[in-house]
Amino acid sequence: MNLYSGHINKLIDELSGLPGIGSKSAQRLAFHLINMPKDKVERLAKTIMEAKENVCYCKECFTLTDNEVCPVCANAKRDHSTIMVVENTRDLAAYEKTGKYEGIYHVLHGAISPMLGIGPGDIRLKELITRLEGNVAEVIIATNSSLEGETTAMYISKLIKPTGIKVTRIASGVPVGGDLEYIDEVTLLRALEGRVEI
Amino acid sequence: MNLYSGHINKLIDELSGLPGIGSKSAQRLAFHLINMPKDKVERLAKTIMEAKENVCYCKECFTLTDNEVCPVCANAKRDHSTIMVVENTRDLAAYEKTGKYEGIYHVLHGAISPMLGIGPGDIRLKELITRLEGNVAEVIIATNSSLEGETTAMYISKLIKPTGIKVTRIASGVPVGGDLEYIDEVTLLRALEGRVEI
Repeated sequence: MNLYSGHINKLIDELSGLPGIGSKSAQRLAFHLINMPKDKVERLAKTIMEAKENVCYCKECFTLTDNEVCPVCANAKRDHSTIMVVENTRDLAAYEKTGKYEGIYHVLHGAISPMLGIGPGDIRLKELITRLEGNVAEVIIATNSSLEGETTAMYISKLIKPTGIKVTRIASGVPVGGDLEYIDEVTLLRALEGRVEI
Repeated sequence: MNLYSGHINKLIDELSGLPGIGSKSAQRLAFHLINMPKDKVERLAKTIMEAKENVCYCKECFTLTDNEVCPVCANAKRDHSTIMVVENTRDLAAYEKTGKYEGIYHVLHGAISPMLGIGPGDIRLKELITRLEGNVAEVIIATNSSLEGETTAMYISKLIKPTGIKVTRIASGVPVGGDLEYIDEVTLLRALEGRVEI
């Protein structure tokens, strides 16, 4: 239905194609953008284009960064023999936020999903294997605790095992501060299976 | 915290300034934009700029449109003696979607809110009064059923009453399909007050 004028409709259409933006939010955003001062809109458009043009993959770990090598890989103080495998740059950032992880990363940019037709060749797995030729002591698999994440973890584990390199998986269980009453059965069972002696 | 590179952080900052976009959605959006094909990103940036440059206020009703006069005001078949006053273009679109309203509109672009320091002079009220000099039989006030919307409705009603023009307010009550059990007391009381004989 053509509720708005051409330019507004076009903008709403473009915005509602973005992730997490439904038709209502797209409308709200569109009118906000139209009502914004012109210089701010220009700055936003410029920032989007600049990010698109200047952000590239780190040639070591494939995270998205401004430089050829990301700050983590470029940092000599980090333990380059421990590689944490994550699904995307946001997951890397989540672990960096803890400030406690000393190793480096490998960003897959996805997870194996037969449902979505994403196979091992569609994520940065070959690049991970190539990196293992260096001096690597441990690969920590920190893919999501979803079906796809688990599948990917299993796949990587089987792939690396023959090389003799230690492969670990981050623990799955009740989140800290989580109330058992509100936690799903699968997590509860996983937490039980993964119980450790104290 | 500088979790990402300069360009990514700048983009996340810009995006999280938009309405309804928190820091998590801004991150998600930023990475989506960076991963989008370049031509699509360019098209999005262009659409935003074009909408900003080409959308203007209808000189009759002040809705946002591409032309000097919006399609509703330009339509001779609409009843130009009935003006529905709404807060914004989205509210106008909501009534247009019903396809049943025959009159024209007046868009205030806001509502009176002493809390936010928005007074009668900050919305398109003067313009409404000017329009009443024409041939107007009824002004239907369709501002939101919020404190600000009600305040605005009362203010407009008092302003127009002396002119002798009929002023009405859209009904407030239980939404169609609404389950009384889940409806707040204020709405229930409003529905009771506004009861009509059947």
